Amino acid sequence: MKTREIADLLSGTLVGNDDVEITRVAAIDSASEYEIAFLDKPLEFVSGASAVLVPLEFDQTASCTIIKVADPKLEFARIASILHPRRFGPYLRHETAVIAESADVRAEVVGAFVSIGDDTSVSKGCHIYDGSRIGCNVKIGNSTIIHANCVIYDNVEIGSNCVIHAGAVIGADGFGYVPDESGNYHQFPQIGTVIIEDNVEIGANSCVDRGALGETRIGEGTKIDNLVQIAHNVHIGKRVVIASQSGISGSTVIEDDCVIGGQVGMGDHARVQSGAIIGSQAGVLPGKIVRPGVWWGTPVQPLDEFKRQNAQLKGIGRMKEEVRTMRERLAKLEEQDQEK
Amino acid sequence: MKTREIADLLSGTLVGNDDVEITRVAAIDSASEYEIAFLDKPLEFVSGASAVLVPLEFDQTASCTIIKVADPKLEFARIASILHPRRFGPYLRHETAVIAESADVRAEVVGAFVSIGDDTSVSKGCHIYDGSRIGCNVKIGNSTIIHANCVIYDNVEIGSNCVIHAGAVIGADGFGYVPDESGNYHQFPQIGTVIIEDNVEIGANSCVDRGALGETRIGEGTKIDNLVQIAHNVHIGKRVVIASQSGISGSTVIEDDCVIGGQVGMGDHARVQSGAIIGSQAGVLPGKIVRPGVWWGTPVQPLDEFKRQNAQLKGIGRMKEEVRTMRERLAKLEEQDQEK
Amino acid sequence: MKTREIADLLSGTLVGNDDVEITRVAAIDSASEYEIAFLDKPLEFVSGASAVLVPLEFDQTASCTIIKVADPKLEFARIASILHPRRFGPYLRHETAVIAESADVRAEVVGAFVSIGDDTSVSKGCHIYDGSRIGCNVKIGNSTIIHANCVIYDNVEIGSNCVIHAGAVIGADGFGYVPDESGNYHQFPQIGTVIIEDNVEIGANSCVDRGALGETRIGEGTKIDNLVQIAHNVHIGKRVVIASQSGISGSTVIEDDCVIGGQVGMGDHARVQSGAIIGSQAGVLPGKIVRPGVWWGTPVQPLDEFKRQNAQLKGIGRMKEEVRTMRERLAKLEEQDQEK
Repeated sequence: MKTREIADLLSGTLVGNDDVEITRVAAIDSASEYEIAFLDKPLEFVSGASAVLVPLEFDQTASCTIIKVADPKLEFARIASILHPRRFGPYLRHETAVIAESADVRAEVVGAFVSIGDDTSVSKGCHIYDGSRIGCNVKIGNSTIIHANCVIYDNVEIGSNCVIHAGAVIGADGFGYVPDESGNYHQFPQIGTVIIEDNVEIGANSCVDRGALGETRIGEGTKIDNLVQIAHNVHIGKRVVIASQSGISGSTVIEDDCVIGGQVGMGDHARVQSGAIIGSQAGVLPGKIVRPGVWWGTPVQPLDEFKRQNAQLKGIGRMKEEVRTMRERLAKLEEQDQEK
Repeated sequence: MKTREIADLLSGTLVGNDDVEITRVAAIDSASEYEIAFLDKPLEFVSGASAVLVPLEFDQTASCTIIKVADPKLEFARIASILHPRRFGPYLRHETAVIAESADVRAEVVGAFVSIGDDTSVSKGCHIYDGSRIGCNVKIGNSTIIHANCVIYDNVEIGSNCVIHAGAVIGADGFGYVPDESGNYHQFPQIGTVIIEDNVEIGANSCVDRGALGETRIGEGTKIDNLVQIAHNVHIGKRVVIASQSGISGSTVIEDDCVIGGQVGMGDHARVQSGAIIGSQAGVLPGKIVRPGVWWGTPVQPLDEFKRQNAQLKGIGRMKEEVRTMRERLAKLEEQDQEK
Repeated sequence: MKTREIADLLSGTLVGNDDVEITRVAAIDSASEYEIAFLDKPLEFVSGASAVLVPLEFDQTASCTIIKVADPKLEFARIASILHPRRFGPYLRHETAVIAESADVRAEVVGAFVSIGDDTSVSKGCHIYDGSRIGCNVKIGNSTIIHANCVIYDNVEIGSNCVIHAGAVIGADGFGYVPDESGNYHQFPQIGTVIIEDNVEIGANSCVDRGALGETRIGEGTKIDNLVQIAHNVHIGKRVVIASQSGISGSTVIEDDCVIGGQVGMGDHARVQSGAIIGSQAGVLPGKIVRPGVWWGTPVQPLDEFKRQNAQLKGIGRMKEEVRTMRERLAKLEEQDQEK
């Protein structure tokens, strides 16, 4: 791509040479020829890049072509998705793939050793990479990418433009048992399903369990990191971000536009209201309603309270010392009082 | 199944029509024709279900056939397991499976791209799903289900009626190293094994490491959720429940009938005594003995103590205020005392 | 091996019969004929072993051949690696493996259903086990073992003598998104790579994400347990040990010779300095610098401070009681004071 094309595409203002060839993106401090970088703040910079995306208020001289845009990091992400399209394997539909006759597979790529079950439909533009298992009666929308060695159980629905990273397991049985008279556990039926809406990304080796009787749902545009656990009947809204190793227990609801840090644990039947932000390693008790705002700690508290409590904790040593001194002063006063 | 058959099977008391056809289970508020639901408490209900399991003390009128049983949720689980048998793949032994000649495989289903190593035996009724790897000299009992893309390393023993969910890894090397003079780590031998008894369920992407020299053992009827880590030489008793993302360090013992919440961490060589319940995100220090009862927090404390301590924490602010006031009153008294 | 050979190999001092046949290692309390065990302390012992490695200061009589060495546990690990070489599959290069023509694969074992992409090189002595996926342009050094069902994404480099356990995912996209005006998330480019140096071990179902623009690096001799998350652009030094279920956020640096416990969480852009030890379940805040020493808690504190604070916490109840008593004594004094 030429710098002019990029500037037009991003509706940016080009300063410099509009005929520079750009082939990939790079970080500003390590970029070299043919590469485009970005700058978050309107400060002077030195870079080997052939072009740099800068904020609108940038008014420095630059040693290379610059393109002024409102949000350089966002536009950098956009141009990167064009310069670095997802790589296709060397084949379209590998001869080793085992695809049920009743399946309707229009995917662009079906890798080696993939298996696809009865009555499953995979829409056009999808990439199903090597060794992934797609069960029976699964529906997958357009242009979704299932990376290698994933397992999608029967009856799951996945929308369009989703990315499921390697080793993720979607639709395994939820974890629900009923004890009998002797304390032996019998599985509560786990015959519901999982519905993943459009533009969702799910990280490597994460697990999304099927609903017990109803559905587990992940809303449009939600992004889930690696090694995350989503239990049965959880409902996650749109544009939610969940960082690595967090676990959401059964029937909990996370509304739209929440941000959940890493290693957070949520009990069952909790509700996180739209816009809430929960810090890493926090714990949400079962049934808890988490209001909008920033939350921290176990059990979660508003960040301000958490900080105040932590400051008080730090002050305990001093308070203890003070109580000791007061005790002595008090004893002295009492003694004097008695002497009178 | 007819309602009469179900009532007989569960030794329940039928009220209503004993010839209603039932084909599947459902939740009481979303059930419709041909479906059976359950009700935990003897309250009036409205449901589209064709039949509902209710407690013995239920004495309301109902709009559909009811069957009175002692534990409706448990009987619901039992009838679900009959109405919804595990689905079989469209094949019995897929032609792509690679099975060692010396292996004795009597499984009902061997999926596509399965590999089974030398001297391994898989008993009748087992389902080994697509892409699972069963190593050499493995023994698997009757009717056990290994879901897709699992890895069972060499020499592991798995009992009958177990369910291992997708992506689980059983028998990888334990994590044990010995540093040499230069600080380089050498692996301590990890040549033991894993023994999984009957009726155990292990969640998706969970890991059970082999013993270093001895065995790692998981007792009969124990249920383990997704993304759980069981380290080398851990011994888990019978009917233990371990929720998602918990991690049990080397040589720790969990006795029968314990319940372990999610994201719990246990240090090595700890012992959790029979009947103990440990809350989510708790931490058990190495070597700790956890007695029967309910435990919470890091390091774990009895729940009552944990609550008392938390209440005291909340009271620090007030105490601080009080100490401040007392300081002033004391200073005033001292001043007056000196004036006299 | 004969006891004489073992003694020579370990430069140990043999006392007893130097012609005893040894075929495997075992724990001292369960060892029997043909087995060698070790003893950490110079105490008397009873063992069915044919030979025992003992400390230099051992001066007891023993019922079997002993070999005195400086570090019995380390020498036990060394001799075990010779007596128990890693098992080879029954085949060398399985006919089902799909290997790109442009790939240069000199591995000793390539299992069933393995796929290896374009321009990838796998050096001699490697074992790539069943169902593992090696992407395009991957480089793997000598004698590295990739266990079953691993996924190595494109462009990753893995050194020599590494062990990657089953289900591990190396090189998935990092978790980085840029929100647009409407709150929708766009992926920040994740086009960097992962470099794993020599002698690294990575546990089952662990994830190491590729760098966003640069690299994620794991230094020589580092050992990582199961279910660990290493985010994009993390740099881990040499001889670092990370226990199970810990998660390291983006761009964090862990210098050489650190030990990280299980379930530890680290925020992004933190730095753990060489030699630091971080206890299990600890939390390191983003940007935090962790100096050498032992650290504990969330947020991490030096162990001594953590213990002092915990002791103070335990003392709150007593302090509260004391404040109550002082309040009464103070009131009495004030009353008397007023009476005068």
